[in-house]
Amino acid sequence: MDMKALLINCTLKPSPAFSNTGALIDKAIKLLKHHDVETEVIRIVDYNVKPGNSSDEGKGDEWPKVLSKIKECDILIIGTPIWVGHLASTAQRIVERLDAIFHEKELADEKTGQYFTYNKVAGCLITGNEDGAHSCAAQLLWAMQECGFTIPPNVNAYWVGPAGGNKDYVEAGGKKYFYTNLTLQYTVANLVYFAGLLKSNPITTNLKELEKQAKKDSE
Amino acid sequence: MDMKALLINCTLKPSPAFSNTGALIDKAIKLLKHHDVETEVIRIVDYNVKPGNSSDEGKGDEWPKVLSKIKECDILIIGTPIWVGHLASTAQRIVERLDAIFHEKELADEKTGQYFTYNKVAGCLITGNEDGAHSCAAQLLWAMQECGFTIPPNVNAYWVGPAGGNKDYVEAGGKKYFYTNLTLQYTVANLVYFAGLLKSNPITTNLKELEKQAKKDSE
Amino acid sequence: MDMKALLINCTLKPSPAFSNTGALIDKAIKLLKHHDVETEVIRIVDYNVKPGNSSDEGKGDEWPKVLSKIKECDILIIGTPIWVGHLASTAQRIVERLDAIFHEKELADEKTGQYFTYNKVAGCLITGNEDGAHSCAAQLLWAMQECGFTIPPNVNAYWVGPAGGNKDYVEAGGKKYFYTNLTLQYTVANLVYFAGLLKSNPITTNLKELEKQAKKDSE
Amino acid sequence: MDMKALLINCTLKPSPAFSNTGALIDKAIKLLKHHDVETEVIRIVDYNVKPGNSSDEGKGDEWPKVLSKIKECDILIIGTPIWVGHLASTAQRIVERLDAIFHEKELADEKTGQYFTYNKVAGCLITGNEDGAHSCAAQLLWAMQECGFTIPPNVNAYWVGPAGGNKDYVEAGGKKYFYTNLTLQYTVANLVYFAGLLKSNPITTNLKELEKQAKKDSE
Repeated sequence: MDMKALLINCTLKPSPAFSNTGALIDKAIKLLKHHDVETEVIRIVDYNVKPGNSSDEGKGDEWPKVLSKIKECDILIIGTPIWVGHLASTAQRIVERLDAIFHEKELADEKTGQYFTYNKVAGCLITGNEDGAHSCAAQLLWAMQECGFTIPPNVNAYWVGPAGGNKDYVEAGGKKYFYTNLTLQYTVANLVYFAGLLKSNPITTNLKELEKQAKKDSE
Repeated sequence: MDMKALLINCTLKPSPAFSNTGALIDKAIKLLKHHDVETEVIRIVDYNVKPGNSSDEGKGDEWPKVLSKIKECDILIIGTPIWVGHLASTAQRIVERLDAIFHEKELADEKTGQYFTYNKVAGCLITGNEDGAHSCAAQLLWAMQECGFTIPPNVNAYWVGPAGGNKDYVEAGGKKYFYTNLTLQYTVANLVYFAGLLKSNPITTNLKELEKQAKKDSE
Repeated sequence: MDMKALLINCTLKPSPAFSNTGALIDKAIKLLKHHDVETEVIRIVDYNVKPGNSSDEGKGDEWPKVLSKIKECDILIIGTPIWVGHLASTAQRIVERLDAIFHEKELADEKTGQYFTYNKVAGCLITGNEDGAHSCAAQLLWAMQECGFTIPPNVNAYWVGPAGGNKDYVEAGGKKYFYTNLTLQYTVANLVYFAGLLKSNPITTNLKELEKQAKKDSE
Repeated sequence: MDMKALLINCTLKPSPAFSNTGALIDKAIKLLKHHDVETEVIRIVDYNVKPGNSSDEGKGDEWPKVLSKIKECDILIIGTPIWVGHLASTAQRIVERLDAIFHEKELADEKTGQYFTYNKVAGCLITGNEDGAHSCAAQLLWAMQECGFTIPPNVNAYWVGPAGGNKDYVEAGGKKYFYTNLTLQYTVANLVYFAGLLKSNPITTNLKELEKQAKKDSE
């Protein structure tokens, strides 16, 4: 089955600077290729994604380029560093640009009203020199679910340093760290399984029909 | 298809006191029945779920009763009130009791190592007199995903009062509130669709096999 | 200056079981005594703190005992283990019982309307075998601030194990871990400084007066 | 007493577009002026604050301008809209730029090692058309505390619309909403009280001395 994965690296550092989150993403790519999934990775700071709440913030805004890649993928993996226990501003930017438009009627399926994200799956990869991965994962996966993605079981892998740590993923030998590698295996396998499942069995929920029922129920 | 939904009401008030979260749960039950899903609702404070990190905390602990209900369900819906912007202690108790045991070998599938939660789906319902629903949903859905449940798109419905609000869901007329009713429709429809999908197409991921590969990759 | 610190250990394990959070709390006590602060430590699971939203949930509820200790202290330190990236249900229980009553008129200062928590300071100590400390600290310190406590700078110390870790604070040698010991020093020193400062310079804010102005501004 | 307040508006919209968060900030300014506090408000999107983790990300980076304003203020108030239950990417950007440098030796007090943020106080203002204010406040206030600011009691005011709301603060009449106005009064009064208190009684904690003790304790 033809499948495409888009991996967005939310490191704060523009290419070609080395990115630890990128190193974890590279491992994911290797596994995805093993499953014959076509992959594309982008570094979000290489794009000028303007703050805003429309599908195109005008002159210079490169969000439309990113959005078109998201539209084409079956599997979305967001990789983010942790900043002050939180997902990076760059990752939050993606979430807010997506949130502003995912429900737009022009993007939705005409018959069912399903968002363009329906039948896509999402997962996340997180690295940090210090604590915060679970909180980042919770915010990211919940937000993706809210925007219409399906979240398979066990689709987040992370590595963090110890309290107050100052070494990053690669420098600290994280690439050989078992638990991160294990959860990465789970993440990729479950994302691929569910992306295939939804390709063969597209969600049938008719959001337009449900809206009518909700209106009736609210009178 | 025979399907069972378990709805856990995490209100702080023991039966038979009126529960606002219970009122939202009741609406979900009505919709689930419409889909011919068998439903059971329990109020967690009616059980003596002890603090702890084993599958049975001994004398008086009623977590085993709750756990056996979770094992039998296809759809798990956790309903929680918001307390100080957070999920109620009662909901967090369920999360921590589940987290302590979901990965236990005795509970896992012998061949694939899949957790007993695989092929089950989870969603959540949240009510509060004030702000906090998104944060509760993020924590709950992420934790359920971490424990092995699948999270379909748009499976949380909520109602909250205004800033500093002192009226609850029912008193404030929330049962007729359109957005809550709409997202409730989405929640139930998507949970039912995915529970059916996974019944027909059980997840094939072999966690034991992936563990071997992760070990090799970590040498 | 006579000062009292109350340290609440939110471990899930009743006395006399060993508690890792308790071991970190013990270190804090040693430092507090060095500052001549009177200390009391309680383990919240040793008390029957019922779920609820009143100052006394009736028969068997031991929250009133805990509340009277909080009323008498100048410094409140909440120590909690992390469960699934979150503060323990036991810690959340304290937050919700406090939140339900902190603003009660009977407890407030008659002239200024200040909550009984005004002029008290709060901090937190967190241990976990895995990620989540920053999220717990954010929820705890914010909630304490919301309930009327003052939050000095750098008043949370934590220790966590690596991703997927299974060793706890003491077993992993955390008692000798520099960063945790450093932030513990900051925590205690700043809590003591601010508790003293507020004893000498009680907050003068008149909440009753401000309420009148807010009413006028809202007409 | 001469005091300066810096209010940072983290709206996603550049000047001179109308900002709801700005409207709440304007109310705060009016109250601060009443206390004879000098105020400055900036809109962070009007500055090119680059992603990064240094005090100056080079060509075009305008973070140094913002940082110098933060250094000069006694009171920092961060105003942020809510995006997907979270603080805006623009607010998170400030937090991450601050976090990357607050502990730098060159910025610290030579004798005590105190961060340049010591003796400054912080609070926050939050608006959103939908749920998420408490989570934003928790992240912001905790992060500010982590960076060395003092957090007085009750220093966050918010306004949010109902579940799935589509009206913003001003359009929905929020300027006359009592609870938001009340907590705004508390916020300003307590920030001003504590800023004055710390001007008269600078924190005496010697971080350098404590570091030595922590080292000894960790041997």
